[in-house]
Amino acid sequence: MSSTADSHGVGARRLVRLAAVQDVLRRYPATPREESGESATVPPDAQAQALRNVLQSWHPADIAYVLECLPLEQRRLVWQQVPAEQDGEILLEVTDAVRESLIADMDRAEILEAVEPLDADELADLVEDLPEAVLPELMASLDVDEREQVQAALSYRDDQVGAVMEFEMVAIDEQLSLGAALAELRKLEALPPQTDKLFVINPARVLTGVLPLERLLLGAPEQAVNQVMAPDVNTFRAEDDIYHVAHAFERYDLISAPVVDAAGRLVGRLTVDAIVDVIRAQGDSEARSRGGLREEEDIFASVWKSVQNRWAWLAINLVTAFVASRVIGLFEGAIEKLVALAALMPIVAGIGGNSGNQTITMIVRALALEQITPGQLRRLWAKELQVAIVNGLLWGGVIGLVAWALYHNAALGLVMTAAMTLNLLLAAFAGVGIPMLMARLGRDPALGSSVLITALTDSGGFFIFLGLATLFLM
Amino acid sequence: MSSTADSHGVGARRLVRLAAVQDVLRRYPATPREESGESATVPPDAQAQALRNVLQSWHPADIAYVLECLPLEQRRLVWQQVPAEQDGEILLEVTDAVRESLIADMDRAEILEAVEPLDADELADLVEDLPEAVLPELMASLDVDEREQVQAALSYRDDQVGAVMEFEMVAIDEQLSLGAALAELRKLEALPPQTDKLFVINPARVLTGVLPLERLLLGAPEQAVNQVMAPDVNTFRAEDDIYHVAHAFERYDLISAPVVDAAGRLVGRLTVDAIVDVIRAQGDSEARSRGGLREEEDIFASVWKSVQNRWAWLAINLVTAFVASRVIGLFEGAIEKLVALAALMPIVAGIGGNSGNQTITMIVRALALEQITPGQLRRLWAKELQVAIVNGLLWGGVIGLVAWALYHNAALGLVMTAAMTLNLLLAAFAGVGIPMLMARLGRDPALGSSVLITALTDSGGFFIFLGLATLFLM
Repeated sequence: MSSTADSHGVGARRLVRLAAVQDVLRRYPATPREESGESATVPPDAQAQALRNVLQSWHPADIAYVLECLPLEQRRLVWQQVPAEQDGEILLEVTDAVRESLIADMDRAEILEAVEPLDADELADLVEDLPEAVLPELMASLDVDEREQVQAALSYRDDQVGAVMEFEMVAIDEQLSLGAALAELRKLEALPPQTDKLFVINPARVLTGVLPLERLLLGAPEQAVNQVMAPDVNTFRAEDDIYHVAHAFERYDLISAPVVDAAGRLVGRLTVDAIVDVIRAQGDSEARSRGGLREEEDIFASVWKSVQNRWAWLAINLVTAFVASRVIGLFEGAIEKLVALAALMPIVAGIGGNSGNQTITMIVRALALEQITPGQLRRLWAKELQVAIVNGLLWGGVIGLVAWALYHNAALGLVMTAAMTLNLLLAAFAGVGIPMLMARLGRDPALGSSVLITALTDSGGFFIFLGLATLFLM
Repeated sequence: MSSTADSHGVGARRLVRLAAVQDVLRRYPATPREESGESATVPPDAQAQALRNVLQSWHPADIAYVLECLPLEQRRLVWQQVPAEQDGEILLEVTDAVRESLIADMDRAEILEAVEPLDADELADLVEDLPEAVLPELMASLDVDEREQVQAALSYRDDQVGAVMEFEMVAIDEQLSLGAALAELRKLEALPPQTDKLFVINPARVLTGVLPLERLLLGAPEQAVNQVMAPDVNTFRAEDDIYHVAHAFERYDLISAPVVDAAGRLVGRLTVDAIVDVIRAQGDSEARSRGGLREEEDIFASVWKSVQNRWAWLAINLVTAFVASRVIGLFEGAIEKLVALAALMPIVAGIGGNSGNQTITMIVRALALEQITPGQLRRLWAKELQVAIVNGLLWGGVIGLVAWALYHNAALGLVMTAAMTLNLLLAAFAGVGIPMLMARLGRDPALGSSVLITALTDSGGFFIFLGLATLFLM
């Protein structure tokens, strides 16, 4: 992807909006009243008025984008001038880290007003970020149905369909004719967003099929719904794993799908926009985890918040580096006798870490796509160990020759080659084993596998190389 | 995500299909004719027949999934029994690596037959994977319109809208009434998949708005299209960056969007299913690049193919490790005098690499979301350098104390603390600078930034630590 703006199209529109806001902030500096004095030529609310003029009629997604791009103090100024009826939508749009900074700026009444227009499923997404003090009042403000829906949505884990589904949908009676169904629809002012099909139910509210809008449009009005409807094979349960379901949306190019309970009764709806967010969030969380960030970080977060977000991974890595350091410490005698060992040992550790991460990346992806079935462990191991032997002899051989030439010591070159091959075998063994074991234990293999393998190939690589050197060179 | 199958829902359906195919392969072993002899009780084509029975009426996406899960020789057996009319769809569905293995198994006539039912945009997606020998015949088999469309699609880079857009869409005259538009639609047998809106054009084929199906359904038949249509703000150009556009689909929850040329004439259509693939592919390519794989790898690829896919990154990493090794070589005299340096130096390099990757991960994400504007470089640097100082004094202090206690050498502890702090500052400086520079140069900052920073903090960390030790401890 490129970060530079193209001269037209969607990137430009957002950058123009950001520039407009930045321009207002520059033209009307927010001088505190006491400093500007009574004689100030710019009235204190000129900036607020100018911001309101700029922001009015923008799409909430665009305002969300501008807020994300602004440093904290400017973000606060803009947030205060956002039309109140858009507050809720914008809170849903912004990234988690930015949402936190916005909510921190709102009082109880403002929060209640902001969330008032939201649907139950949207409310459930926000609840965990709201201050606890506001929740009793918020729940009391809902009607019985809404309260039950919010509570239902909150009862599911983040990786379950129930946490993502919505309750707004159109269900029609299977006995109707297409014409009658259309007449029913016309009574609605609008369909829920992302409606590509209606859900067909029987009197017990059991889902019996789906009616794509297309069939409603193209079919003859006198046909019965249950004659033209499609039996829906893509029906999900609120307990389903959302990542499985995301793959189904991808594979079958779905736009919306019904969610049913154990008895087949319609309880909710999944839409592709929520699935897109799931896919994006999955990629982001994997990238974050590999990069060693605990959670999403606002680029304008305070130094202190950033330190908190990063210390856990730094601490884990310091511990593994310390273990590796103690492994080297075991062999200080050998290094004293042959100081070349100190210079060469990072190469052995490095190639193991790299190669192990290659294997893990491939296995994690195949696990995510469910391409690996239990019987294949031995086959995968066999292949990866063979790759390790080829790479070990090839690259280990090259570096062994270089070490020989540099230090005029053939035995050192041989030890180098042997150590690199053995560390590559260790990396291959663990590169398959660690993610498979984590999957077996029901953990996400994308999180943490990389740190584990690097720790293993570092300490293991130092131990193998320095151990072989002690055995054969001392 | 979890890799274990849940007991119901979408995961189960696919696993059941895989199990059915594996069962057939087990029950009818594919013994070559010559070995089984004339007296074999199982006729040689019993397996083929059983596979055909199992596969018939499956969704192409499900067959694609089963093919991805099978080792090469079994995959070939199943592929030969797939209904010929589904071959093209399946080739589109499978991963790139598996597609290659399937096409390798097809002769010229089979390939031409397989791609015959595909649309121009689908064909363009496949063309680069087809053997060159087949292309002239393939292009000759298309009609003029299709050939032009394929050539147009091939003329765009993978990261441009033109490479992803389709040509199948419904455009209606802005002068029609809703009733007349509906009558026009009824002449079609079906709408193109993912049609949520019709594109409204004037006689010069210039896009003047869009008509959501919802308005067609709910509006009064006598209203004119150009009275109820929406002016479409989300219109893209074939040259647009597809990642920008994907963000627009996410932000504005789009299902389809028109693509126009410089004169505003309608030339194509983008749909959310293609965008979902783009988002998934983006996450995958980032994960692959971080993991050091050149391209997507079939878990059942041959050892030789795997070695080819991985050697480039291993070579790059060996070069950077070799440079780090030569940096250490500069200080062999110091290590000989104080061997503790050899044990401690990986800690200094490690914390720098880690911390640098944390910074890069955050910056790369913010660049992808376009949250960083040019004026912010200094502010980001200031923050990251402050975080580095806090972490350096904190973790550097802890490790410094530990080093003092282990080696009874206070000066060594101080050098350790200083070296860790300096390497963290280097990591912060480069962690902001490298991705920003790559973005400025129009390169994708997600690819390669991580390797660069690790190389820098390894060699830099060794140099800083061993250099300080030489200055103050020798």
